Amino acid sequence: MADQTDITHMRRAVALAALGLGTTSPNPVVGCVIVDAAGEPAGEGFHEYAGGPHAEVNALRAAGDRARGGTAYVTLEPCDHTGRTGPCSQALIEAGVARVVLAVADPNPVASGGADRLRRHGVRVETGVLAEEAGDGNAAWLTWTRLGRPYVTWKFAATLDGRSAAEDGTSKWITSPEARADVHRLRAEHDAILAGIGTVLADDPQLTVRPPRGRPPLRVVLDSDGRTPPHARVLDSAAPTLIAVAEGTEISHPDVVRLPRADGGLDLTALLAELSRRQVVSLLIEGGPVVAGSFLRAGLVDRVVGYLAPALLGSGPAALGPAGVPTITETHRLTFDEISPIGPDLRLVARPAPPKETRVHGNR
Amino acid sequence: MADQTDITHMRRAVALAALGLGTTSPNPVVGCVIVDAAGEPAGEGFHEYAGGPHAEVNALRAAGDRARGGTAYVTLEPCDHTGRTGPCSQALIEAGVARVVLAVADPNPVASGGADRLRRHGVRVETGVLAEEAGDGNAAWLTWTRLGRPYVTWKFAATLDGRSAAEDGTSKWITSPEARADVHRLRAEHDAILAGIGTVLADDPQLTVRPPRGRPPLRVVLDSDGRTPPHARVLDSAAPTLIAVAEGTEISHPDVVRLPRADGGLDLTALLAELSRRQVVSLLIEGGPVVAGSFLRAGLVDRVVGYLAPALLGSGPAALGPAGVPTITETHRLTFDEISPIGPDLRLVARPAPPKETRVHGNR
Repeated sequence: MADQTDITHMRRAVALAALGLGTTSPNPVVGCVIVDAAGEPAGEGFHEYAGGPHAEVNALRAAGDRARGGTAYVTLEPCDHTGRTGPCSQALIEAGVARVVLAVADPNPVASGGADRLRRHGVRVETGVLAEEAGDGNAAWLTWTRLGRPYVTWKFAATLDGRSAAEDGTSKWITSPEARADVHRLRAEHDAILAGIGTVLADDPQLTVRPPRGRPPLRVVLDSDGRTPPHARVLDSAAPTLIAVAEGTEISHPDVVRLPRADGGLDLTALLAELSRRQVVSLLIEGGPVVAGSFLRAGLVDRVVGYLAPALLGSGPAALGPAGVPTITETHRLTFDEISPIGPDLRLVARPAPPKETRVHGNR
Repeated sequence: MADQTDITHMRRAVALAALGLGTTSPNPVVGCVIVDAAGEPAGEGFHEYAGGPHAEVNALRAAGDRARGGTAYVTLEPCDHTGRTGPCSQALIEAGVARVVLAVADPNPVASGGADRLRRHGVRVETGVLAEEAGDGNAAWLTWTRLGRPYVTWKFAATLDGRSAAEDGTSKWITSPEARADVHRLRAEHDAILAGIGTVLADDPQLTVRPPRGRPPLRVVLDSDGRTPPHARVLDSAAPTLIAVAEGTEISHPDVVRLPRADGGLDLTALLAELSRRQVVSLLIEGGPVVAGSFLRAGLVDRVVGYLAPALLGSGPAALGPAGVPTITETHRLTFDEISPIGPDLRLVARPAPPKETRVHGNR
C-alpha cells in the first residue's frame, strides 16, 4: 500500500516531469525517482525531449547499482514497446527494481502493458498514487491520446471589466511586461498557436515565442475566406504557419488546410483532427473574441488562462464574443485551478467544471 | 523610537480597531493596546459603537492600575474634546501612562490636539507607527473628514469576461451563495447603498442587509426623472430610502433630494455633499453599469470590490458601462489590494493607483 513516503517521492517525480513541458511533445512528460532498498533516494530523471531517453532510463543511470531491490516512482506507466528507445519496463526489470509505484496508467495502446510485464517478472506494482496531480501535469498528452485532438487552452488578457481594447481599438498595453513575458512562456509550452483572421487584420501579431526557445510553435490562422495579407507578420520566416480556409477558397500559401464551413465559421473538430495528425498535442487560442466564442460554443476549450489587469475601461471590444449562452443557466461554468499575482496583474487558470458525478483526469 | 515590539502592539491595535467597522459611523474606528511599565500587555479595547466609550477608555478600564508608567498604543490620535465622552488625552494623563504611540494624527479640527496636551503633561508621544495600515483601516472616515464626502466603494459581480447577466437579462445567480453572503457583510459595513433607476426597474432589488444587523444602511436611488415605482422593494419598510431626482422633478416620496443635472445624469458631487451632511461616511455603489461608469468618470470611486465567478457568458450586459475612456492611455488604473477565494469565486479589492510621487492614506 502507498504511504506518505510514497506520496512524497511521487510528488517529486511529478515536479521532475513538469521540467519537460514544452520539449517532449508529442511524447508525454514523465518523471521518475528511484530509492534504494534502504529507502534512500538513489537517482532521479525526467523525459527531457522527444527522441531522448525516457525518465526511467535517466533515473536508472543516476541510481546505478543502488536500484537493485529498490523502488521506482514513475508518473506514467513505463512503456512496453521499442520505439526510439527500448521498453522501460524491461530496463526496470534488468536493473533489479523490486517495486514500481505508478501514478497514471498509459492509455496509449501502442505503449501500454508495462505494468503487466513488470508483474510477470515478479516486480510489485502499485498504481494510482497521486494520479490526479500527475494526470494534470500530462493533461495535454492524455487528451490527445484519449480523444484524438489537441488539448486546447484559451488565453486572454483583459481589464477587470472584461475588455481587451479601448473604444478606439488601442490595446497596448493592458497588461504588464511581467504578464506579457508569461504569455511567451505559455506559448513556448504549446505545439501550436491559433488566431482568427480578425486579430491578424486588426493587430498583425507575429505569434512567436520571444526570446525563441526550442522548436517554434506552429502558427495557425483561422481564415475562412483566405484574407490573410501576404505581408502579415504571422507569415514571416520565424515559424511555420498553417492557414485554415473554407473548402473551395483560393489562397496562395504553401501550407493550407481546407475545411467544411460550420456554425458561421469553419468546422473546428475537423481542424483539430488535422492538427492532431500533425502531432499537435497542445493548442493555444490567442484571439480574438469571435474565435474564442466559437471554440467555447463547440465545447472544445480544456483550459482558460486569463491575465486580468487592475484596470477599468467601460467601453471597447470585449475579450470574449458570443459563446452560445442565451440564458444564465447555460453559462460556461469553470473552476479556478490557479490564481497568482503576476507583476501588478492577476493570472487565472480555470477549467470547465467537472460533471458532478465524476472527475476524469486530464480531460475534464 | 518605535521598535519591533511597538509595531507588534500597534498591529494588534489596528486589528482591534477593525472590529468596530460598521457600528462606529460617523466616528472613526479606533483600537488601543496598553502595556504596563514592564512591557507586559495590560489591557486592550476598541471603539465599539457611536456614542459608546472610546478605545482608550475601554483599554484603560481593562488595564486598571497597570496603566501607570506604561505605554498606550492607539491607532488614531486621542481626542482632546469633550463630546459624548470626556477627552481621551486627559484620561490617559490621569491614568499615569508614560508613553503614547500613535499611528495616525487626527485630521478633525474639532477633536485634534490630543498629542499636544499629552506632551504638555510630560507624556512621551511618538507618531506615525503603522500609519499606512491604520489609515487604510480608517479609509472611509479619513476621506469623509478630509474631503467632506463619503468614501465610495463600487461593488460588482461578474463572469470572467466581465458580464453581469446573460443575453436574455437573467443573472440569478452568477456568483455563489458564499459570495452573495459576503455582499451582505459588505453592505453592513456601509452607511448607505446606492443603485440607479435602471437596476431598480430591471431587478427590483431590496438593497438591505440580510440577516439584519445594527442600523440598516440608507438606501439611495439615483432617479433623475422620478421613475421609481411606488411598489419597488427598495421603498419597503426595511430601511430608510432617499430618492435623488433632477431639480424640478415631481415625485411623491417622503425623502427626496433634488440635484442639478450633469454629464447625462445627476451632479454626483452635489449628491455626495448631501450624503456627507447626513453623516454618510461610506457609500456602496451596487449598480448598474451606467451608474458605476458615471462615478468612475467623475473620479469618485475610492475602492472597487469585484466578485468574479469562474464562468463565461460571451454576451449579455457588461458589468461596467461607459466610463469616459476613449483610448488605452486613459484607462482607469487600479492596484490590487486583496485577492481572496470566496467559495468557488474570487473576491478582488482594488483601489485607484496612487499618483507616482505621493501616497495619501485613505484617499488614494
